[in-house]
Amino acid sequence: MSWTGFKKSLNRAGTTVLQKTGQIERTVDREFADEESKYRAFEKECQALQKDSKNYNDSMRAMTAAQARLAETIETFYGAADRTSDGAMAGHAFKSAVEDLDGGIQRELDAPYRTTIMEPLGKMNAYFPVVNEHISKRNKKLLDYDAARSKLRKVIEKPSEDPTKLPKAQQEHDDAKEVFELLNEQLITELPQLLDLRVPYFDPSFEAMIRMQCKFAEEGYEKMSAVQRYFADSVRDDYAAGQLDAQVEGVLQEMRELSICGAN
Amino acid sequence: MSWTGFKKSLNRAGTTVLQKTGQIERTVDREFADEESKYRAFEKECQALQKDSKNYNDSMRAMTAAQARLAETIETFYGAADRTSDGAMAGHAFKSAVEDLDGGIQRELDAPYRTTIMEPLGKMNAYFPVVNEHISKRNKKLLDYDAARSKLRKVIEKPSEDPTKLPKAQQEHDDAKEVFELLNEQLITELPQLLDLRVPYFDPSFEAMIRMQCKFAEEGYEKMSAVQRYFADSVRDDYAAGQLDAQVEGVLQEMRELSICGAN
Repeated sequence: MSWTGFKKSLNRAGTTVLQKTGQIERTVDREFADEESKYRAFEKECQALQKDSKNYNDSMRAMTAAQARLAETIETFYGAADRTSDGAMAGHAFKSAVEDLDGGIQRELDAPYRTTIMEPLGKMNAYFPVVNEHISKRNKKLLDYDAARSKLRKVIEKPSEDPTKLPKAQQEHDDAKEVFELLNEQLITELPQLLDLRVPYFDPSFEAMIRMQCKFAEEGYEKMSAVQRYFADSVRDDYAAGQLDAQVEGVLQEMRELSICGAN
Repeated sequence: MSWTGFKKSLNRAGTTVLQKTGQIERTVDREFADEESKYRAFEKECQALQKDSKNYNDSMRAMTAAQARLAETIETFYGAADRTSDGAMAGHAFKSAVEDLDGGIQRELDAPYRTTIMEPLGKMNAYFPVVNEHISKRNKKLLDYDAARSKLRKVIEKPSEDPTKLPKAQQEHDDAKEVFELLNEQLITELPQLLDLRVPYFDPSFEAMIRMQCKFAEEGYEKMSAVQRYFADSVRDDYAAGQLDAQVEGVLQEMRELSICGAN
């Protein structure tokens, strides 16, 4: 920070303290406050969207990757036993389905997800620091304006013997007012314009996101239904009737009877 | 470790060193080595299955949670604009679909996933430490047997003047052999039995896993297709033709023209 910059921020800190103790009047600008609060909500939404879009994509990839590893292990598992059993056939079909799905996502969904969702969000989020810089400049100029107004009022209330003091204070006040009002007007006019652009800007992204989630579900359903036919229909009913639990318990009992598994 | 235990492990460490330098013959037991290697593969598979099943479930939950947060933000986003626009209607339908899906998973998939997959895997994995304890005991007794055999051979090759030395060495050798062979036989007989049980044991789990992944895909597809109808069919073609990219670029250009976004 330059020496001038340092003095400026010191003066502004002083103005803030005097405003807090009621010795300098603070400009309250409802119009700006309203626009800023809508803008802040939008900023927060965009940041949440960016974070959650990334989370969604990462967890979708983690899920299909875990699925692929499971399918791999299950195939090895049956492969070491009877390769022609129903389980082995289902395990093999499961592995192909999951590989297709995993490959399909990489091929068909990754690039469009990046182009239609992550990149537009990234570009939008890159504007916030620029706009925030404008807002913070406006706030600083407002403090300068409040300070200059207070100074002018004091000179008017307690006229000085120095005849140059009043015109100088008046000039400083007018300059500060003009600088502040220019920045303020710009924000009050343009913040709503920026917000109005958000719907046409994000419409294609949201649509792409919803469509891609549909596509993902559709692909998954198609691939997985090809695996289901390896299972006898009766199994679902057996399962519902608790017979599969009994099967598992029966095998567990046999394990327990092995002395290497702790039987006495 | 007791004093006896300490002396035992010191002696066994000595036996290992003497075996490495070729001064004590090591019992090589192909039959046990084969069974152990199949058992180790199974142990590794079960641990991988447990880890990946947990990863699959965690990432599925993370994905639907990210989807729910995205839907929430998108609805707020459109809600602050025009609630009757196509985008707003699609956003609202998306939110309902995703909430249904998220709720459905918690209600219908979480408990069965735990019962049919995570718990059987957990029970199986709990047996490995028990079996490993047997294997490590067998390996220790093998070292004792190798040491006793070597000692007996030395006494035979260089007969001692003490007539009690040979029968004592013979007795020690016979005892060590018997203890080792009992443990070895047990493992050679029972490891294959344990491995044979793995298919009937895990069949229901694998089937449940594949069925649940089908169910998840099916539910997702059903819920999401209800959202798709909010989009004009033309959009997909527009998108393919790169017109949506042009729309996004057009809006970006308008943003750039705002002075608060950095226009000069």
